[in-house]
Amino acid sequence: MFENINIYSSVAVYMQIENYVQFAVASDRLKAGERLPSVRELSEKLKVNPNTIAKSYRDLEVMGIVYTRRGMGVFINRNIEDKCKVECRRRIIARVNEVVAEARSAGMSAAEVKAICSACFASDAEPYADTPESLLAMAKMPAKKA
Amino acid sequence: MFENINIYSSVAVYMQIENYVQFAVASDRLKAGERLPSVRELSEKLKVNPNTIAKSYRDLEVMGIVYTRRGMGVFINRNIEDKCKVECRRRIIARVNEVVAEARSAGMSAAEVKAICSACFASDAEPYADTPESLLAMAKMPAKKA
Repeated sequence: MFENINIYSSVAVYMQIENYVQFAVASDRLKAGERLPSVRELSEKLKVNPNTIAKSYRDLEVMGIVYTRRGMGVFINRNIEDKCKVECRRRIIARVNEVVAEARSAGMSAAEVKAICSACFASDAEPYADTPESLLAMAKMPAKKA
Repeated sequence: MFENINIYSSVAVYMQIENYVQFAVASDRLKAGERLPSVRELSEKLKVNPNTIAKSYRDLEVMGIVYTRRGMGVFINRNIEDKCKVECRRRIIARVNEVVAEARSAGMSAAEVKAICSACFASDAEPYADTPESLLAMAKMPAKKA
Protein backbone atom coordinates (compact mmCIF):
# COMPACT_ATOMS: atom_id res chain seq x y z
CA MET A 1 0.00 0.00 0.00
CA PHE A 2 1.17 3.57 -0.78
CA GLU A 3 4.03 2.22 -2.91
CA ASN A 4 3.96 5.05 -5.47
CA ILE A 5 4.17 8.08 -3.15
CA ASN A 6 6.98 10.27 -4.50
CA ILE A 7 8.41 12.91 -2.18
CA TYR A 8 10.10 14.59 -5.18
CA SER A 9 6.83 15.19 -7.08
CA SER A 10 5.42 18.70 -7.45
CA VAL A 11 2.18 17.35 -5.97
CA ALA A 12 2.23 17.68 -2.16
CA VAL A 13 2.69 14.39 -0.28
CA TYR A 14 -0.50 14.80 1.80
CA MET A 15 -2.42 15.26 -1.48
CA GLN A 16 -0.78 12.18 -3.03
CA ILE A 17 -1.87 10.13 -0.01
CA GLU A 18 -5.45 11.43 -0.23
CA ASN A 19 -5.53 10.74 -3.99
CA TYR A 20 -4.02 7.29 -3.50
CA VAL A 21 -6.82 6.29 -1.12
CA GLN A 22 -9.57 7.79 -3.30
CA PHE A 23 -8.24 6.21 -6.50
CA ALA A 24 -7.77 2.85 -4.75
CA VAL A 25 -11.34 2.89 -3.45
CA ALA A 26 -12.66 3.95 -6.88
CA SER A 27 -10.84 1.03 -8.54
CA ASP A 28 -11.71 -1.55 -5.82
CA ARG A 29 -8.11 -1.98 -4.66
CA LEU A 30 -9.18 -0.84 -1.19
CA LYS A 31 -12.46 -2.15 0.18
CA ALA A 32 -14.87 -1.15 2.95
CA GLY A 33 -13.54 -2.16 6.38
CA GLU A 34 -9.88 -2.40 5.32
CA ARG A 35 -7.46 -0.82 7.76
CA LEU A 36 -4.95 1.80 6.65
CA PRO A 37 -1.42 1.71 8.11
CA SER A 38 -1.12 3.67 11.35
CA VAL A 39 0.26 7.22 11.16
CA ARG A 40 3.51 5.99 12.70
CA GLU A 41 3.88 2.98 10.39
CA LEU A 42 3.26 5.02 7.26
CA SER A 43 5.45 7.89 8.39
CA GLU A 44 8.34 5.45 8.90
CA LYS A 45 7.73 3.69 5.59
CA LEU A 46 7.51 6.87 3.50
CA LYS A 47 10.03 8.80 5.62
CA VAL A 48 7.72 11.80 5.90
CA ASN A 49 6.59 13.80 8.90
CA PRO A 50 3.80 12.10 10.93
CA ASN A 51 1.85 15.39 10.80
CA THR A 52 1.63 15.05 7.01
CA ILE A 53 0.06 11.59 7.30
CA ALA A 54 -2.23 12.78 10.10
CA LYS A 55 -3.44 15.66 7.90
CA SER A 56 -4.27 13.28 5.02
CA TYR A 57 -6.17 10.92 7.31
CA ARG A 58 -8.05 13.83 8.88
CA ASP A 59 -9.02 15.19 5.44
CA LEU A 60 -10.15 11.73 4.32
CA GLU A 61 -12.25 11.46 7.47
CA VAL A 62 -13.87 14.84 6.81
CA MET A 63 -14.66 13.65 3.25
CA GLY A 64 -16.33 10.59 4.79
CA ILE A 65 -13.96 8.16 3.08
CA VAL A 66 -12.37 6.74 6.25
CA TYR A 67 -13.37 6.53 9.90
CA THR A 68 -11.27 6.20 13.04
CA ARG A 69 -11.87 3.64 15.77
CA ARG A 70 -10.01 4.82 18.83
CA GLY A 71 -7.19 2.44 19.66
CA MET A 72 -8.00 0.27 16.62
CA GLY A 73 -6.93 2.40 13.63
CA VAL A 74 -8.27 4.07 10.52
CA PHE A 75 -10.65 2.12 8.26
CA ILE A 76 -12.25 2.52 4.84
CA ASN A 77 -15.90 3.51 5.17
CA ARG A 78 -18.83 1.58 3.72
CA ASN A 79 -20.90 2.62 0.69
CA ILE A 80 -18.43 5.16 -0.61
CA GLU A 81 -17.20 3.39 -3.78
CA ASP A 82 -19.66 5.16 -6.08
CA LYS A 83 -19.02 8.54 -4.46
CA CYS A 84 -15.26 8.03 -4.88
CA LYS A 85 -15.66 6.92 -8.49
CA VAL A 86 -17.70 9.96 -9.46
CA GLU A 87 -15.42 12.30 -7.48
CA CYS A 88 -12.26 10.87 -9.14
CA ARG A 89 -13.83 11.10 -12.58
CA ARG A 90 -14.90 14.71 -12.02
CA ARG A 91 -11.40 15.62 -10.97
CA ILE A 92 -9.85 13.82 -13.93
CA ILE A 93 -12.31 15.43 -16.37
CA ALA A 94 -11.45 18.88 -14.97
CA ARG A 95 -7.73 18.21 -15.42
CA VAL A 96 -8.13 16.74 -18.92
CA ASN A 97 -10.19 19.80 -19.85
CA GLU A 98 -7.47 22.12 -18.57
CA VAL A 99 -4.68 20.39 -20.47
CA VAL A 100 -6.80 20.07 -23.65
CA ALA A 101 -7.54 23.80 -23.54
CA GLU A 102 -3.82 24.49 -23.14
CA ALA A 103 -3.00 22.11 -26.00
CA ARG A 104 -5.58 23.78 -28.22
CA SER A 105 -4.23 27.22 -27.47
CA ALA A 106 -0.69 25.96 -28.20
CA GLY A 107 -1.87 24.84 -31.66
CA MET A 108 -2.01 21.09 -31.04
CA SER A 109 -4.72 18.95 -32.66
CA ALA A 110 -7.12 16.51 -30.99
CA ALA A 111 -5.38 13.66 -32.87
CA GLU A 112 -2.02 14.64 -31.39
CA VAL A 113 -3.34 14.83 -27.83
CA LYS A 114 -5.03 11.43 -28.24
CA ALA A 115 -1.80 9.93 -29.58
CA ILE A 116 -0.02 11.24 -26.46
CA CYS A 117 -2.80 9.72 -24.32
CA SER A 118 -2.29 6.34 -25.97
CA ALA A 119 1.46 6.49 -25.47
CA CYS A 120 0.98 7.46 -21.82
CA PHE A 121 -1.50 4.62 -21.29
CA ALA A 122 0.93 2.19 -22.91
CA SER A 123 3.72 3.29 -20.54
CA ASP A 124 3.78 1.99 -16.98
CA ALA A 125 4.36 5.37 -15.37
CA GLU A 126 2.98 5.70 -11.85
CA PRO A 127 1.16 8.89 -10.86
CA TYR A 128 3.60 11.52 -9.55
CA ALA A 129 6.67 9.79 -11.02
CA ASP A 130 8.85 11.82 -13.38
CA THR A 131 7.66 11.79 -16.99
CA PRO A 132 9.66 9.16 -18.91
CA GLU A 133 12.05 10.65 -21.49
CA SER A 134 10.55 8.29 -24.10
CA LEU A 135 7.26 10.19 -23.80
CA LEU A 136 8.86 13.64 -23.69
CA ALA A 137 10.66 12.72 -26.92
CA MET A 138 7.27 12.96 -28.65
CA ALA A 139 7.58 16.74 -28.20
CA LYS A 140 10.20 16.83 -30.93
CA MET A 141 8.11 15.10 -33.56
CA PRO A 142 6.59 17.57 -35.99
CA ALA A 143 2.79 17.70 -35.94
CA LYS A 144 2.06 15.92 -39.23
CA LYS A 145 -1.40 14.40 -38.82
CA ALA A 146 -3.79 17.19 -37.90
CA MET B 1 -4.46 39.88 -26.27
CA PHE B 2 -4.60 38.19 -22.84
CA GLU B 3 -8.37 37.85 -23.09
CA ASN B 4 -8.57 34.51 -21.29
CA ILE B 5 -6.65 35.33 -18.10
CA ASN B 6 -8.85 34.26 -15.19
CA ILE B 7 -8.04 35.64 -11.75
CA TYR B 8 -10.29 32.97 -10.17
CA SER B 9 -8.33 30.02 -11.62
CA SER B 10 -6.19 27.81 -9.38
CA VAL B 11 -3.28 28.56 -11.75
CA ALA B 12 -1.41 31.69 -10.61
CA VAL B 13 -1.98 34.77 -12.79
CA TYR B 14 1.75 35.32 -13.49
CA MET B 15 1.89 31.69 -14.73
CA GLN B 16 -1.19 32.16 -16.92
CA ILE B 17 0.45 35.22 -18.52
CA GLU B 18 3.68 33.31 -19.17
CA ASN B 19 1.73 30.37 -20.61
CA TYR B 20 -0.41 32.69 -22.74
CA VAL B 21 2.67 34.19 -24.39
CA GLN B 22 4.38 30.81 -24.89
CA PHE B 23 1.25 29.16 -26.31
CA ALA B 24 0.57 32.16 -28.57
CA VAL B 25 4.12 32.08 -29.95
CA ALA B 26 3.91 28.28 -30.41
CA SER B 27 0.69 28.63 -32.40
CA ASP B 28 1.79 31.72 -34.42
CA ARG B 29 -0.74 34.06 -32.83
CA LEU B 30 2.18 36.21 -31.60
CA LYS B 31 5.06 36.82 -34.00
CA ALA B 32 8.67 38.00 -33.68
CA GLY B 33 8.88 41.75 -33.14
CA GLU B 34 5.32 42.18 -31.85
CA ARG B 35 5.03 44.43 -28.82
CA LEU B 36 3.33 43.24 -25.62
CA PRO B 37 1.12 45.69 -23.71
CA SER B 38 3.06 47.75 -21.18
CA VAL B 39 3.03 46.62 -17.56
CA ARG B 40 0.70 49.50 -16.71
CA GLU B 41 -1.72 48.87 -19.60
CA LEU B 42 -2.00 45.16 -18.85
CA SER B 43 -2.30 45.69 -15.11
CA GLU B 44 -5.22 48.08 -15.70
CA LYS B 45 -6.89 45.77 -18.23
CA LEU B 46 -6.64 42.62 -16.07
CA LYS B 47 -7.04 44.49 -12.77
CA VAL B 48 -4.03 42.74 -11.26
CA ASN B 49 -1.02 44.13 -9.42
CA PRO B 50 1.65 45.61 -11.76
CA ASN B 51 4.28 43.54 -9.90
CA THR B 52 2.56 40.38 -11.14
CA ILE B 53 2.82 41.50 -14.77
CA ALA B 54 6.41 42.64 -14.23
CA LYS B 55 7.31 39.22 -12.82
CA SER B 56 5.84 37.44 -15.87
CA TYR B 57 7.68 39.71 -18.29
CA ARG B 58 10.94 39.26 -16.37
CA ASP B 59 10.55 35.45 -16.41
CA LEU B 60 9.78 35.50 -20.15
CA GLU B 61 12.89 37.62 -20.69
CA VAL B 62 15.03 35.15 -18.71
CA MET B 63 13.59 32.35 -20.88
CA GLY B 64 14.67 34.34 -23.96
CA ILE B 65 11.11 34.64 -25.27
CA VAL B 66 10.84 38.44 -25.04
CA TYR B 67 13.32 41.31 -24.91
CA THR B 68 12.96 44.81 -23.47
CA ARG B 69 13.90 47.97 -25.34
CA ARG B 70 14.22 50.69 -22.77
CA GLY B 71 11.55 53.33 -23.26
CA MET B 72 10.03 51.34 -26.16
CA GLY B 73 8.47 48.29 -24.52
CA VAL B 74 8.63 44.52 -24.43
CA PHE B 75 8.85 42.60 -27.72
CA ILE B 76 8.66 38.98 -28.87
CA ASN B 77 12.13 37.65 -29.69
CA ARG B 78 13.18 36.22 -33.06
CA ASN B 79 13.78 32.53 -33.82
CA ILE B 80 12.01 31.21 -30.75
CA GLU B 81 8.92 29.63 -32.37
CA ASP B 82 10.43 26.13 -32.52
CA LYS B 83 11.79 26.36 -28.99
CA CYS B 84 8.36 27.48 -27.72
CA LYS B 85 6.60 24.71 -29.66
CA VAL B 86 8.82 21.98 -28.23
CA GLU B 87 8.67 23.47 -24.72
CA CYS B 88 4.85 23.70 -24.81
CA ARG B 89 4.58 20.15 -26.11
CA ARG B 90 6.92 18.81 -23.41
CA ARG B 91 4.87 20.51 -20.75
CA ILE B 92 1.59 19.22 -22.19
CA ILE B 93 2.99 15.67 -22.50
CA ALA B 94 4.09 15.76 -18.85
CA ARG B 95 0.62 16.89 -17.75
CA VAL B 96 -1.20 14.36 -19.95
CA ASN B 97 1.06 11.65 -18.52
CA GLU B 98 0.22 12.71 -14.98
CA VAL B 99 -3.53 12.73 -15.54
CA VAL B 100 -3.42 9.44 -17.49
CA ALA B 101 -1.52 7.79 -14.64
CA GLU B 102 -4.14 9.11 -12.20
CA ALA B 103 -6.95 7.88 -14.45
CA ARG B 104 -5.34 4.46 -14.74
CA SER B 105 -4.94 4.16 -10.99
CA ALA B 106 -8.61 5.22 -10.56
CA GLY B 107 -9.64 2.33 -12.82
CA MET B 108 -10.49 4.33 -15.96
CA SER B 109 -9.77 2.90 -19.42
CA ALA B 110 -7.84 4.50 -22.28
CA ALA B 111 -11.09 4.62 -24.28
CA GLU B 112 -12.80 6.61 -21.55
CA VAL B 113 -9.97 9.13 -21.24
CA LYS B 114 -9.93 9.58 -25.03
CA ALA B 115 -13.69 10.11 -25.05
CA ILE B 116 -13.23 12.83 -22.43
CA CYS B 117 -10.44 14.35 -24.58
CA SER B 118 -12.77 14.46 -27.59
CA ALA B 119 -15.55 16.08 -25.58
CA CYS B 120 -13.11 18.65 -24.20
CA PHE B 121 -11.77 19.43 -27.68
CA ALA B 122 -15.35 19.82 -28.94
CA SER B 123 -16.14 22.30 -26.16
CA ASP B 124 -14.95 25.89 -26.46
CA ALA B 125 -13.51 26.09 -22.95
CA GLU B 126 -10.61 28.51 -22.57
CA PRO B 127 -7.59 27.46 -20.50
CA TYR B 128 -8.07 28.33 -16.82
CA ALA B 129 -11.84 28.79 -17.15
CA ASP B 130 -14.06 26.67 -14.90
CA THR B 131 -14.81 23.22 -16.28
CA PRO B 132 -18.24 23.31 -17.98
CA GLU B 133 -20.92 21.30 -16.14
CA SER B 134 -21.71 19.53 -19.43
CA LEU B 135 -18.25 17.93 -19.31
CA LEU B 136 -18.35 17.17 -15.57
CA ALA B 137 -21.66 15.38 -16.20
CA MET B 138 -19.63 12.68 -17.98
CA ALA B 139 -18.41 11.65 -14.51
CA LYS B 140 -21.82 10.19 -13.79
CA MET B 141 -21.94 7.93 -16.83
CA PRO B 142 -21.05 4.34 -15.96
CA ALA B 143 -17.89 3.04 -17.62
CA LYS B 144 -19.41 0.68 -20.19
CA LYS B 145 -16.89 0.44 -23.03
CA ALA B 146 -13.56 -0.74 -21.60
